[in-house]
Amino acid sequence: MTSPDRWPEIRGIAYGGDYTPEQWPREVWREDVVLMREAGVNLVSVGIFAWALLETSEGVFDFEWLDELLDLLHENGISVDLGTPTASPPAWFFADHPDARVVSRDGVTMGFGARGMASHASPAYRAAIVRIASALAERYGSHPAVVMWHVHNEYGVPVGEDYSEQSVRAFRGWLRDKYATLDALNTAWGTTFWGQRYGEWDHVGAPAAAPSVVNPAQRLDFARFTDHQLRACFVAERDAIRAHASQPITTNFMANQSWTTDLWAWAREVDIVSDDHYLWAADCEGEIGLAIAADLSRSVGGGAPWILMEHSTSAVNWQPRNVAKRPGEMARNSLTHLARGADAILFFQWRASRSGAEKFHSAMVPHAGTASRVWREVVELGDALGRLEEVRGSRVAADVAILWDFESFWAQDLEWRPSVDVSHAEQIRAFYERLWRDGITVDFALPGQDLSGYKLVLAPAQYLLNTADAANLTRYVEAGGTLVVSFFSAIVDENDAVHLGGFVAPLRDALGIVVEEFLPLREGARHAVEWTGPASARLLADAWQEDLVLHGAEVKATYVDGPGAGKAAVTRHAHGTGHGWYISTRLDAAGLRTVMSDVYADAGVAPSDLPEGLEVVMRRGDDADYTIAVNHRDDAVALAASGVELLTGAEVEDEFLVPAGGVAVIRAPHIP
Amino acid sequence: MTSPDRWPEIRGIAYGGDYTPEQWPREVWREDVVLMREAGVNLVSVGIFAWALLETSEGVFDFEWLDELLDLLHENGISVDLGTPTASPPAWFFADHPDARVVSRDGVTMGFGARGMASHASPAYRAAIVRIASALAERYGSHPAVVMWHVHNEYGVPVGEDYSEQSVRAFRGWLRDKYATLDALNTAWGTTFWGQRYGEWDHVGAPAAAPSVVNPAQRLDFARFTDHQLRACFVAERDAIRAHASQPITTNFMANQSWTTDLWAWAREVDIVSDDHYLWAADCEGEIGLAIAADLSRSVGGGAPWILMEHSTSAVNWQPRNVAKRPGEMARNSLTHLARGADAILFFQWRASRSGAEKFHSAMVPHAGTASRVWREVVELGDALGRLEEVRGSRVAADVAILWDFESFWAQDLEWRPSVDVSHAEQIRAFYERLWRDGITVDFALPGQDLSGYKLVLAPAQYLLNTADAANLTRYVEAGGTLVVSFFSAIVDENDAVHLGGFVAPLRDALGIVVEEFLPLREGARHAVEWTGPASARLLADAWQEDLVLHGAEVKATYVDGPGAGKAAVTRHAHGTGHGWYISTRLDAAGLRTVMSDVYADAGVAPSDLPEGLEVVMRRGDDADYTIAVNHRDDAVALAASGVELLTGAEVEDEFLVPAGGVAVIRAPHIP
Amino acid sequence: MTSPDRWPEIRGIAYGGDYTPEQWPREVWREDVVLMREAGVNLVSVGIFAWALLETSEGVFDFEWLDELLDLLHENGISVDLGTPTASPPAWFFADHPDARVVSRDGVTMGFGARGMASHASPAYRAAIVRIASALAERYGSHPAVVMWHVHNEYGVPVGEDYSEQSVRAFRGWLRDKYATLDALNTAWGTTFWGQRYGEWDHVGAPAAAPSVVNPAQRLDFARFTDHQLRACFVAERDAIRAHASQPITTNFMANQSWTTDLWAWAREVDIVSDDHYLWAADCEGEIGLAIAADLSRSVGGGAPWILMEHSTSAVNWQPRNVAKRPGEMARNSLTHLARGADAILFFQWRASRSGAEKFHSAMVPHAGTASRVWREVVELGDALGRLEEVRGSRVAADVAILWDFESFWAQDLEWRPSVDVSHAEQIRAFYERLWRDGITVDFALPGQDLSGYKLVLAPAQYLLNTADAANLTRYVEAGGTLVVSFFSAIVDENDAVHLGGFVAPLRDALGIVVEEFLPLREGARHAVEWTGPASARLLADAWQEDLVLHGAEVKATYVDGPGAGKAAVTRHAHGTGHGWYISTRLDAAGLRTVMSDVYADAGVAPSDLPEGLEVVMRRGDDADYTIAVNHRDDAVALAASGVELLTGAEVEDEFLVPAGGVAVIRAPHIP
Repeated sequence: MTSPDRWPEIRGIAYGGDYTPEQWPREVWREDVVLMREAGVNLVSVGIFAWALLETSEGVFDFEWLDELLDLLHENGISVDLGTPTASPPAWFFADHPDARVVSRDGVTMGFGARGMASHASPAYRAAIVRIASALAERYGSHPAVVMWHVHNEYGVPVGEDYSEQSVRAFRGWLRDKYATLDALNTAWGTTFWGQRYGEWDHVGAPAAAPSVVNPAQRLDFARFTDHQLRACFVAERDAIRAHASQPITTNFMANQSWTTDLWAWAREVDIVSDDHYLWAADCEGEIGLAIAADLSRSVGGGAPWILMEHSTSAVNWQPRNVAKRPGEMARNSLTHLARGADAILFFQWRASRSGAEKFHSAMVPHAGTASRVWREVVELGDALGRLEEVRGSRVAADVAILWDFESFWAQDLEWRPSVDVSHAEQIRAFYERLWRDGITVDFALPGQDLSGYKLVLAPAQYLLNTADAANLTRYVEAGGTLVVSFFSAIVDENDAVHLGGFVAPLRDALGIVVEEFLPLREGARHAVEWTGPASARLLADAWQEDLVLHGAEVKATYVDGPGAGKAAVTRHAHGTGHGWYISTRLDAAGLRTVMSDVYADAGVAPSDLPEGLEVVMRRGDDADYTIAVNHRDDAVALAASGVELLTGAEVEDEFLVPAGGVAVIRAPHIP
Repeated sequence: MTSPDRWPEIRGIAYGGDYTPEQWPREVWREDVVLMREAGVNLVSVGIFAWALLETSEGVFDFEWLDELLDLLHENGISVDLGTPTASPPAWFFADHPDARVVSRDGVTMGFGARGMASHASPAYRAAIVRIASALAERYGSHPAVVMWHVHNEYGVPVGEDYSEQSVRAFRGWLRDKYATLDALNTAWGTTFWGQRYGEWDHVGAPAAAPSVVNPAQRLDFARFTDHQLRACFVAERDAIRAHASQPITTNFMANQSWTTDLWAWAREVDIVSDDHYLWAADCEGEIGLAIAADLSRSVGGGAPWILMEHSTSAVNWQPRNVAKRPGEMARNSLTHLARGADAILFFQWRASRSGAEKFHSAMVPHAGTASRVWREVVELGDALGRLEEVRGSRVAADVAILWDFESFWAQDLEWRPSVDVSHAEQIRAFYERLWRDGITVDFALPGQDLSGYKLVLAPAQYLLNTADAANLTRYVEAGGTLVVSFFSAIVDENDAVHLGGFVAPLRDALGIVVEEFLPLREGARHAVEWTGPASARLLADAWQEDLVLHGAEVKATYVDGPGAGKAAVTRHAHGTGHGWYISTRLDAAGLRTVMSDVYADAGVAPSDLPEGLEVVMRRGDDADYTIAVNHRDDAVALAASGVELLTGAEVEDEFLVPAGGVAVIRAPHIP
Repeated sequence: MTSPDRWPEIRGIAYGGDYTPEQWPREVWREDVVLMREAGVNLVSVGIFAWALLETSEGVFDFEWLDELLDLLHENGISVDLGTPTASPPAWFFADHPDARVVSRDGVTMGFGARGMASHASPAYRAAIVRIASALAERYGSHPAVVMWHVHNEYGVPVGEDYSEQSVRAFRGWLRDKYATLDALNTAWGTTFWGQRYGEWDHVGAPAAAPSVVNPAQRLDFARFTDHQLRACFVAERDAIRAHASQPITTNFMANQSWTTDLWAWAREVDIVSDDHYLWAADCEGEIGLAIAADLSRSVGGGAPWILMEHSTSAVNWQPRNVAKRPGEMARNSLTHLARGADAILFFQWRASRSGAEKFHSAMVPHAGTASRVWREVVELGDALGRLEEVRGSRVAADVAILWDFESFWAQDLEWRPSVDVSHAEQIRAFYERLWRDGITVDFALPGQDLSGYKLVLAPAQYLLNTADAANLTRYVEAGGTLVVSFFSAIVDENDAVHLGGFVAPLRDALGIVVEEFLPLREGARHAVEWTGPASARLLADAWQEDLVLHGAEVKATYVDGPGAGKAAVTRHAHGTGHGWYISTRLDAAGLRTVMSDVYADAGVAPSDLPEGLEVVMRRGDDADYTIAVNHRDDAVALAASGVELLTGAEVEDEFLVPAGGVAVIRAPHIP
């Protein structure tokens, strides 16, 4: 078995979606392939929820229908991403193995009838997933239709943590591996607090519902364990497939939508990063969340092209109010993903289901059929993607990185933090949004990685920062980098234990400050900050202030009112040949613009002068660079560019008018 | 045993309430009967929560106190509605049969100490209810005081669904009866979705808490099963009573307050429909909800007189803020029920309890005693009802029907619908309220019944509509009827599976439209609709728009803004000799008035020209018709009428001035 | 063994806090004692969460570290309040005794990992707490550092009620002791309601989750039982200690923060009352809640000096937004407690924890170390307390009492009361706040106690009032007292059964009214009351009105609008030589000022004329009286006084200027 290719054998940009013909009679299958060809579909994912059909009781397989399906698809030139159905074991599995059911934190045993999620720690489940994955790979490893493997579905949702006996046992084993001795565990968890010291390994359990708040280090380790367990399940399936098949293997992430899996670690295990992305309908600027998800998908994969494994042609079904996409919105979404590195644009799902929990989820073929706006746009998008074949493989480059660290999020999300108004997701969105409006392309990064390629690094939500990573950030500044740290960062170490010497002490050299005390505000309280830059101004902020102690930093802004009145609010520190900025309050959008404007100057980063709402990203290829402009505005915008606009074929000299709601992809010679 | 009379042997309008003398010493019993006579009480319900007193351990009965009570009542000319106490089994029952406890969806076993609700599926419970019902009927079947039997209490509340092992087993049996084969079940439930296909009957369970949303068809069947189980319990008791007693048998419904039982099916099993009704205190126009409940009670019974089994003299105790009734309000409520078909006006309860969960519930004899406003009004009401004896047996006629289908509500109330802003209860209330304000009397109806007697049929919330019922509605239009369908109707079939061919497709012929896509709005979003009738106007709406495809319908209104801007919002379609209207958004009250005004013209229905707040309903007898006018206003209103006003005895010529807050009942010769 | 002294052997005002050196290495211990001496700390509480370290498996003790610690503290002149660690049993205890875990009302078994709360009814737990308490007392009963014993921690939180099998069994035993016969229980609980009558003791259980609202008398008894069980645990430990040690024994209450324990009963069992108090950060006037807690702590102990066992130097960690204290606030808080009778000012905790659930809780030594505002203020406070040594032992006197009855609160907090807008805590706060702003010092009292020493007694929330206590209040009025009763008082007896004869009937003689009916208002409704005193005025009110029946009372105010329009709202009744006032609605602050102004005149109570925000309380000693003035204002306020200001040593003639945010303690000769 040799190492597989990292991209499926498929021509151009992949286009298609989840395909569940098992829900339909054979005549619909035949209609499907005709329609797929009409739409330019070249890749479909099959089998993801088909375990009960493929293995009708333990070890009894029925592959006939799948044989027929794969042959039909192959005959029609449609490639297959073949799923393992392990996200939803059959009813017989749970009947045979009742102790493989997931138990909630409150002790509720999860029943059958939804997605039949099983305990990741159950030996029976581990055996079963290897059996079905092996059987599929053995049978279809050489099928010409199969160009990729799709393991499981959305690991970590709808449930991740499992409090069953099986899981508790596995947790104990994981802890022994991690800590070797109980003394080490007791120290890491700080079990002297509230008298929790363990004298026997068998006394250590999962952090189930308890009379009060459970040890946060225990909960953080349980989050790590859960992530590790799920990944171990993936690895078991992946290796089972690899024994019989050489196509690339992936599983679909949920970047920026679920935080239960550490995508950095997962990206190391998959051949290709895949992501599912759904707009949050209540957000009128959902395209910003989309851009975050896309950039994160690209970043965890080290910048390699990735697969948009699922998104929706229009509304989803699981939000409180499932807003339909407006005309053109599906294409803008799709091409934004492509602009940010996706070389495959796939949907959940091909044909809308008549039955089940997700029947009101939109699809490429809607309930209304092909005489519909959605279908017309699906065909148009297939055509557009066909014109972008050459973009495939080109890469996005960024000068700016925002730190994104799942372990820190897990720790911050535990109970009894200083203020419920502080959210990692909101802080990252605020800084990302500023950069997005300023037309600056961003990577996400880990605090411990090599950051030397970035002119600017932001840490809006790095609550957990170990000392090694803090040293890495300090070296980054020393060597000339510009670092922006927002409040409630660098507070605890890897065991959720407070760093001593004043909050933020691990970054004291880089920032020239420490924090003596947090000053959270009452609900709804707002306050002003006096900005002392060249353009003196009053900035507005809320939620949080701090009592800063200066250790060399220059004060850039001062609290006008609130508990911190008169004290430093924003500081800048020269360290080595770089600068460390610290923002100790939650600025509003205008305030952040003012501060970031000075930060850009330090970092040598140039914000774009395009009107807000024209989203522009460049993908760089070996021979050509592609400027992709997505116009979210209601008016056309002139973009300075020269080259060829690929969607229209137009020759562009100096300027291209991107239509209202439209997209342009302009090829120009590569500038290395 | 011959078929019993359909109305209890009692003179005039029945008046009284639940009577629980077991809570009081004997001297209070004697005071009670004196007061009952003072108030004109002629019917009381007894024994409803007396199981523990009647059967002190399994098979050991103590009837002495009840003998004494019934004799005392009989001596005083007060008839008895004798209850079976099966809504609350004794403590010994649960001690003997711990597996008869109800289990919640989350797996919590319900304890004793409230109403002792048992598992409807428990064989021990089934045996016990037959035993106590038989024993009561045997002993009191010929007692002269007993004129009616009252089985159980408010089936379906406080809990209906039961997830105990007993219930799961019974559910499996019910499914086998319904589907015969697992293939049929798998098809109906769409179990290929999310890999739920069943290979063994024993693997099928109740839709308990699961990692995600449970199969909606399974949940719908579980709702049907629950309703069926409860009804089977009723039938078992009813038949046990019937073996020894010939009086009519009823059980008290909760129309418009609980939706867990299919009252259409229940009404077929009882001899007389009874209803409990309580105002919702937060609703400043609770009389509209009352009217809905009364009309529904009448409708499920096919128009026959019914019993208001419980309402309150003043405040209840179980709402967040239990608002007391204002002077005169109890009489208005009572006589509104009577106007809408009730020939018995009963209360919960006769004398306010000192102890227990409901001690702050008002009663006919309040805690303050008889020197109280409530008692004075109770006596006055008894007097008023005495004057209305002749109204008994007359019937209400309506030209308009609103569809009310519990199965559809059960289906619509499941998870993951397009928008949480869409509620069947709210939609029905909105249309009913319009008709109420327009002085139009309404029946409720099932979509599959004979509708030919109605000039106008409204379907504000018919989410589930099977094809046969859709054909019935189409025939109704064809034959000259006017049908009004509101959005999110005719979406799924009896298995909660989407009808293909565009939403609302089953009514395409009747309405001349289908719906390509739902366009739910964001929270709080409002929009305008341009009305193109003779009186062109801008109507306001919210929550929902749709992408309508016209198949012959005329556009009556167009979306001005929002995602549907420029598209049809309201349509009218000529089909056969009738008309089908479709309203694709949630209009506000003024908007609905505008649209319904044109609908009335199509249907030949005439709205009243009385001032809003004067509620007028006519009951038609063999010899006389009775116009009952309830004045909810703060001023007197002149009502055009001639005849005799029964409450005052006044001769009315042309006009009667209904006093502020008062009621008039005017007899006129019957016009056939 | 002789009766112990009632105050620990310690010089002056005790100062210090919880000390958990087990969380730190030995070098920190040595730094700690140096810092304690710098701050003037003379008392620390140790061992409270150290069970797992002291008894490493059943019966195996390790006292070495504690020996070392106590010796170190003693060498440095720091006394010890030695805790028993029974609030958090070790992991091995639960492993050995899994049935000792607490079960929630919903049946969830509480896990380990927080505070390891055990079932108070578990025989194994009872044995274990006696074993560890005895072992500690035996070893340290004569240790010279130990001046006090601290049993357990905050009984009743985080959980009080326990629904485990062990607890149910104990509940049954407690009920047999209380009622002797099942008949008595059935009568007290009113079990004829909803058919709950018990025929066997074994059928009686805890009021666990049930299909509807559980019997309120059963729940009230379960609350009493829970309180009794917890106290029995305390007594067991106390007696185990007393067998070996003679120092005073206490446990820390949570006055005005938790209502699960009856502090009046607890105060009878402890040698000294201790209280933990934390500001509620969302309350901008948290000092009022603090004053309530302090007055309650003093009152339950019969006026004796008490210990502020825990408060915080700055923010806590368990509220939604943990607001830090402003400069000077910690001293104001501390000295307010002292003003209201505390002779010990202690904190949770000495040194901020690095790990665990409470690491963001402030401490005397903050994370930032000693170069911090908090530490500087800790040292200053130690210095100030040193100057107040002579205040120790003096007592607070009050002319006014507010009734505070935990049993009544337990009953009122049950389900299905007339309105969710009625809260005992809010009602007490409203009246207390009025008195606080008027500069009137208040005791709390039980309705059955001797009240003859008070000029004015208020009953803002005496929902449960038995007839004997009602007679006591009536005698109080008769003998010349002034009684103010607010709505929803005197409603039920000790079994939560309604008093007959109109609500409030037990106080009819004292108040000259009864209440015919409650008139709760809809959410948000406001209304006006016409005040008919000398200064006629419109007062504003909300939430509640009543239908009052006068039996001799004079009408002081009348409802202008709302359901009670035209009826009496506030009444005053002359009875004997005193007066009974009744306030039947929830007045706003201005309205209450108007009414109370007349009440003061009746009672002969003089409100202060100091500006609002200068809180003044007097402590009276044998030789001197101490006027303690806490200035919560932003400006200095002149206080009329003569004597010596102890904090500054200044001689005061006629007037002392209390600085903004500052405190003054002025000694003057005692006036008996």
